[in-house]
Amino acid sequence: MAKNLLYAQSGGVTAVINASAAGVITTAREVGERIGRVFAARNGILGVLREILVDTAGISDNDLARLRATPGGAFGSCRFDLDPAERNPAQYDRLFAVLAAHEVAYFLYNGGNGSMETCRQIQAEADARGYPLTVVGVPKTIDNDIVHTDCCPGFGSAAKYLATSVREVGLDLAAMTTSGGRAFVLEVMGRNAGWLAGACALAAEGPGQAPHLILLPEVPFDEPAFMRRVQAVVERVGACAIVVAEGLRGPDGRILAMQRENKGYIQLGGAGEVIADRIASSLGYKVHYAVADYLQRAARHIASKTDTAQAFAVGKAAVRRALAGSCGVIGIKRISGHPYRWRTIQLPFEKVANLERKLPPDFIAKDGFGVSDDFRAWCRPLIAGEDPPRFVDGLPDYLHLDLPLEPPHLPGWQP
Amino acid sequence: MAKNLLYAQSGGVTAVINASAAGVITTAREVGERIGRVFAARNGILGVLREILVDTAGISDNDLARLRATPGGAFGSCRFDLDPAERNPAQYDRLFAVLAAHEVAYFLYNGGNGSMETCRQIQAEADARGYPLTVVGVPKTIDNDIVHTDCCPGFGSAAKYLATSVREVGLDLAAMTTSGGRAFVLEVMGRNAGWLAGACALAAEGPGQAPHLILLPEVPFDEPAFMRRVQAVVERVGACAIVVAEGLRGPDGRILAMQRENKGYIQLGGAGEVIADRIASSLGYKVHYAVADYLQRAARHIASKTDTAQAFAVGKAAVRRALAGSCGVIGIKRISGHPYRWRTIQLPFEKVANLERKLPPDFIAKDGFGVSDDFRAWCRPLIAGEDPPRFVDGLPDYLHLDLPLEPPHLPGWQP
Repeated sequence: MAKNLLYAQSGGVTAVINASAAGVITTAREVGERIGRVFAARNGILGVLREILVDTAGISDNDLARLRATPGGAFGSCRFDLDPAERNPAQYDRLFAVLAAHEVAYFLYNGGNGSMETCRQIQAEADARGYPLTVVGVPKTIDNDIVHTDCCPGFGSAAKYLATSVREVGLDLAAMTTSGGRAFVLEVMGRNAGWLAGACALAAEGPGQAPHLILLPEVPFDEPAFMRRVQAVVERVGACAIVVAEGLRGPDGRILAMQRENKGYIQLGGAGEVIADRIASSLGYKVHYAVADYLQRAARHIASKTDTAQAFAVGKAAVRRALAGSCGVIGIKRISGHPYRWRTIQLPFEKVANLERKLPPDFIAKDGFGVSDDFRAWCRPLIAGEDPPRFVDGLPDYLHLDLPLEPPHLPGWQP
Repeated sequence: MAKNLLYAQSGGVTAVINASAAGVITTAREVGERIGRVFAARNGILGVLREILVDTAGISDNDLARLRATPGGAFGSCRFDLDPAERNPAQYDRLFAVLAAHEVAYFLYNGGNGSMETCRQIQAEADARGYPLTVVGVPKTIDNDIVHTDCCPGFGSAAKYLATSVREVGLDLAAMTTSGGRAFVLEVMGRNAGWLAGACALAAEGPGQAPHLILLPEVPFDEPAFMRRVQAVVERVGACAIVVAEGLRGPDGRILAMQRENKGYIQLGGAGEVIADRIASSLGYKVHYAVADYLQRAARHIASKTDTAQAFAVGKAAVRRALAGSCGVIGIKRISGHPYRWRTIQLPFEKVANLERKLPPDFIAKDGFGVSDDFRAWCRPLIAGEDPPRFVDGLPDYLHLDLPLEPPHLPGWQP
């Protein structure tokens, strides 16, 4: 009898991670009897350990199409790292007991750098135990910080949303004159890597258009030089639009944060607010700031068609590789830039797990306040094409999955 | 010879104010020789006083269609109130000198409450001076706070953007479990009126869905009751999504703001951050917050088709009324709710100018933490329908107008 497949989602979710889920489920249905049941764990590896599973057979074809166009993680996600096998064998005993109880031979884990380490650990332990399992990592992160892949599903849509927002806000900003000068700061995600901040550069169609300056986490914040640049922009075009990555660091290597005297209060003020505050106090401009936060990784309504296609494709490729008994992480290889052509590849876990891809120096502008033309050329195809969800009554018709839980075969267990 | 028309934009711009401009220009072209030239002032009434005008004949039909789908204020906006005529007659001497120099018989001003007062002042002074002028106010504001109109162009699109964002972020939030509880706060515009905050309620398709709580400026912030509600939501569904209007006030009537010890720094922390901070410190949850700021009023990419149609229609009606010699503010009258049917009306300046429409009590939920079903029924048709801009290379193809300035007829003048 054909063995079963288990899929799970991990880490911060994206606008298109469910497109990867749809790619997995659709492809598993297409291969027919070569795969038995297609389970999904609730809340990632935690759901596997807790034996909280659903059978995706309960998703109708119509809902599968809606799933492809729904942001968030329809099966639930988690932030949970497995212990090293030698330190916590009981955790792996439980994991493999659950996999065995549900006759799982294929485990597909949809996540970022850390999740690829989870994949590596599980494959290694399966091999050590002689459990017949093929683990395939399905990449996902808006941060685009996975190594050895052209890009990562989730990034293109977040980038398209942010670049669109910057283009729009630039038109708003340009409409109002203030004799005293104006600035606008948009804080975007990116703790260590400036891919998303950099993508905002695509908003500008010509010199003088927003964004005028981009502050990348790869470039230590040079405040005096920055203030001179802001002032020069305002003197030239009246207002300055700035994009700042949340992970912007000062010359001392520390993340910028508000120096507040709020005893007992948790520190929340981020890089966007810091930059806005400093411009207001240094230059006396009227400053607004926006924090995109989760909006940028959930904005399925303006997803990139390239991105949704890649998200679906990595799910599909993962099933094909799993069936072929080939473990590893699915990646995307760029075959050509103009026109953009790509295909999926597979990488060994070791080459990807826990590594982080920052902006390379040739993607950063010489002055440090933006990105290079090479970055723009690399990024442009990734936001290309529209793939809007269906709208009902003025709002996107997203799917709320509500599948019954599989009856557990094992006693309860808490990680 | 036919007299000329002058159009100008005022106040905070919106995603659809240019659709009103397109309505004005298109209609003026349609009526042929009944109107001479169609000028637009740069930066609102300031451009009139400074005699900085452009001739809209320079806009091609193709660009006029792009203008209709471009956010921001293509002719530039301003925040400038005329002095009372009796206090500063020189200002009006200049104003009418400019109008006379360009043979303007129709003045159309596209703005909010304050701009309708400007309209009233100019019409009154024209009548007093015997200058043959018909002034028509073209309404615009995302705040929806203009009285005696069903709604105001700009509101529906901002509402659609925010409700979509809340629906999307709700799916993101629901995907992640944290044993300690999670909350997300979105700060939206609305200094005194909760129309936009309330519109976010449309995101929820059922109980338990985001937004779980809405903090309106009309309802004094009851912190203990709020914290109990947040806790109850988190205990029921694991995470709580909150929408807060920027103008939320405490029981003392003062706007909430961070109590920071940042000597010399300008206070920027807004209501969203305050609420996030307080949840984190009171309940110990992991809290994120987003600030939509200008993004919400510029998001033309997800404009409401109802809104763009109304924005165009008020521009069109303004030209018709001006030609008929009928001064006043264009409004929208709801003929029926299901299906939504509406028509333009005209209101005396006195009934609109400087007045502010807050949420009426029957639109506010009994517990004060949201809106009523009546509000939902009123709001739903205003976000209905999609009217996306054209996309090129993955981004909206917005128009950057660059018309030559009309040669001035008068000496320079500064207001």
